[in-house]
Amino acid sequence: MEKKGIQSLVVFGDQTLGNPDLAYVVGASLPRGGIYLKGRGRTPILIVSNIDIGSARKGRVNKIKSYSDYGLEKINSKYERDEARAVFYRKLIKEEGLQAPTVLGGRNDSSNTLQLVDSLRERGVKVVGEKSPTVLENVRETKDAREVERLRDVGKKTCWVVEETVKFLRKAKPTGSRISYKSKMLKVGDVKNVVRKLLVQKNLVATEDIIFAPGKRSSDPHYNGDEQDPVRPREPIVFDLFPSEPDGYWHDTTRTLAFGPPDRRVKEMYDVVMEAQTVALDQIKEKTPCSDVMINVCKLFERRGYPTVRQLSSGHREARTRGFIHSLGHGVGLTIGERPYLSLYGKALLRKGAVVTVEPGLYDPRFGGVRLEDIMVVGSPSENLTSLSRELEI
Amino acid sequence: MEKKGIQSLVVFGDQTLGNPDLAYVVGASLPRGGIYLKGRGRTPILIVSNIDIGSARKGRVNKIKSYSDYGLEKINSKYERDEARAVFYRKLIKEEGLQAPTVLGGRNDSSNTLQLVDSLRERGVKVVGEKSPTVLENVRETKDAREVERLRDVGKKTCWVVEETVKFLRKAKPTGSRISYKSKMLKVGDVKNVVRKLLVQKNLVATEDIIFAPGKRSSDPHYNGDEQDPVRPREPIVFDLFPSEPDGYWHDTTRTLAFGPPDRRVKEMYDVVMEAQTVALDQIKEKTPCSDVMINVCKLFERRGYPTVRQLSSGHREARTRGFIHSLGHGVGLTIGERPYLSLYGKALLRKGAVVTVEPGLYDPRFGGVRLEDIMVVGSPSENLTSLSRELEI
Repeated sequence: MEKKGIQSLVVFGDQTLGNPDLAYVVGASLPRGGIYLKGRGRTPILIVSNIDIGSARKGRVNKIKSYSDYGLEKINSKYERDEARAVFYRKLIKEEGLQAPTVLGGRNDSSNTLQLVDSLRERGVKVVGEKSPTVLENVRETKDAREVERLRDVGKKTCWVVEETVKFLRKAKPTGSRISYKSKMLKVGDVKNVVRKLLVQKNLVATEDIIFAPGKRSSDPHYNGDEQDPVRPREPIVFDLFPSEPDGYWHDTTRTLAFGPPDRRVKEMYDVVMEAQTVALDQIKEKTPCSDVMINVCKLFERRGYPTVRQLSSGHREARTRGFIHSLGHGVGLTIGERPYLSLYGKALLRKGAVVTVEPGLYDPRFGGVRLEDIMVVGSPSENLTSLSRELEI
Repeated sequence: MEKKGIQSLVVFGDQTLGNPDLAYVVGASLPRGGIYLKGRGRTPILIVSNIDIGSARKGRVNKIKSYSDYGLEKINSKYERDEARAVFYRKLIKEEGLQAPTVLGGRNDSSNTLQLVDSLRERGVKVVGEKSPTVLENVRETKDAREVERLRDVGKKTCWVVEETVKFLRKAKPTGSRISYKSKMLKVGDVKNVVRKLLVQKNLVATEDIIFAPGKRSSDPHYNGDEQDPVRPREPIVFDLFPSEPDGYWHDTTRTLAFGPPDRRVKEMYDVVMEAQTVALDQIKEKTPCSDVMINVCKLFERRGYPTVRQLSSGHREARTRGFIHSLGHGVGLTIGERPYLSLYGKALLRKGAVVTVEPGLYDPRFGGVRLEDIMVVGSPSENLTSLSRELEI
């Protein structure tokens, strides 16, 4: 806050779910949300409705108050809804002695929040916006011991689901040009249902679906695999799993699998991706520039003859669809995509406690895709949260 | 828009999941989000990244463009990130001839969005906030035929899960002061696991958990039921299920169950709640004032001797914990809580195509809670999307 010239922070929202900044400062699940106040150098305060005080106490804020403590009912009876809210927020800011400028954080309806901001400004409260990264994006970038413990736990559970899925796949057998299980042709939907049931057993949710992409279409890194897709022998299958605790922390891991030895060129891609991942994982250390890890992986792929996104700017258009066509990694925590970013332009240095995916991949529309993804906690030494073998053949 | 004096609307976000306004205007799932532009009386435009054009075509916008069509790459190379965004948005607004004032909608980081708004204002774009209900809250309040079809489908699936859960419960038997299943004492966690597996079978997600609250603690309408809670004979169990399609529409239904006849006073509460629900369901018609339905239910409960929230303002403090202690209903669609609200202060009239829960309940800390909840589509006649029996005893 000091570096940004911000004197106070108000984070709010109508639930912590889908509101990572609020979830972070509260440190607990609040189904009806709340308002978090923090002045520079002052004790934070969390304000919730009377019925949510118990839930709020499970979190990290010690000073918890209720809306009634600030007379919300009286304000509500005197003003219409939006005006009442502005009057109430101004009262909070004043009574708690928060200094200007104030930042209003949290994920909320843009249009109605602007109404609140303009209304507060009219009432003399100096509210400012923030360039990215915001103060909260910055603090959320590094995880404390409690957060790492939860990420470790989600990691273990996710790896268990992957392992159990592979065990299930081992029971299926090639039959001609298809894979069959219990004398029925195996479809992607069958596998996804197995994965979904395994996730339930660990109380994980895959809110953003599951990638189980077999064959040539796996060369599109965004292809999830349709329920009706057949699974065939010797084709690469990209299995990318990214579940989370309900209203909590995420994991994100990818393995590439094949029933029987795939085409020689897929095997070559696989070996190079594994080499690239090994090199990159070793480079995940405090103070390494994020872009260095990405650029090193690009260089390795290029030396082996694969196009990379790094060459796009020099007119190498093939790297749109073939080779290493995405970034190397992204932060994971209360969201599945946050700081730091291991991209060509990620100038920042890796910070101790940052949690980041390392996911090199090679894609070729003629054969399919290959990707391996682990999650690292930056430290001395760094810790790999994804404990899974990297065997290609099932 | 006309009524509100708004000339143009820009809805944006980095994904449709958790961003109901963006999900609504797009009408499809966009994992990487997009920007939607709508001038009054003009054809809407949806702008997405090149790789998402296919996903965007599954939605309701016909005119789809990519960021590259507006030269994003060039702008990105010339300006730093936040400035580039403001320059890009100003260019979109200008090139597409959107008139002032403009509303910026969607669920986004409040602080970084304010940065964008201030930057646009500095560049001469007149961006205004909106009082609630916003234009998009208003249009989302009524559902078109396509939306009702999806809500009907989620409703059927949810009811199937409830019915299958009840079938499972019928296999459990009272054993002394506990309920046992396969000679083990039944716990809430066991039941929730059954429900979770059933949800998976229908590809529904219960992002906000499941309420299966047995015994006295069910008198707190917000108590979910802990995994370790025992299930006992003759106690009321509040079973409230509110799942959704992944990145889609929700359902919300409650049944109250008991193993064997509960205490006479619980049975009385149950009968009155059923009567109240029947009366309220009949009242769900176009042009009925929302508060009328709520007030009628309060009156019925009060006549039967139960306190209600309506009496709180006249100092009847008991209605904080006993009697009818919450509102009668809320809208359901791409979220589990939206307009219309069947509350004491919901002055609005029910509109054709509105989809609303009807959930009277009675609570008593000495015995527990009783609640019944169905979802209605307002029409001529209105349609009940929750096709479930209302038997108390399992």
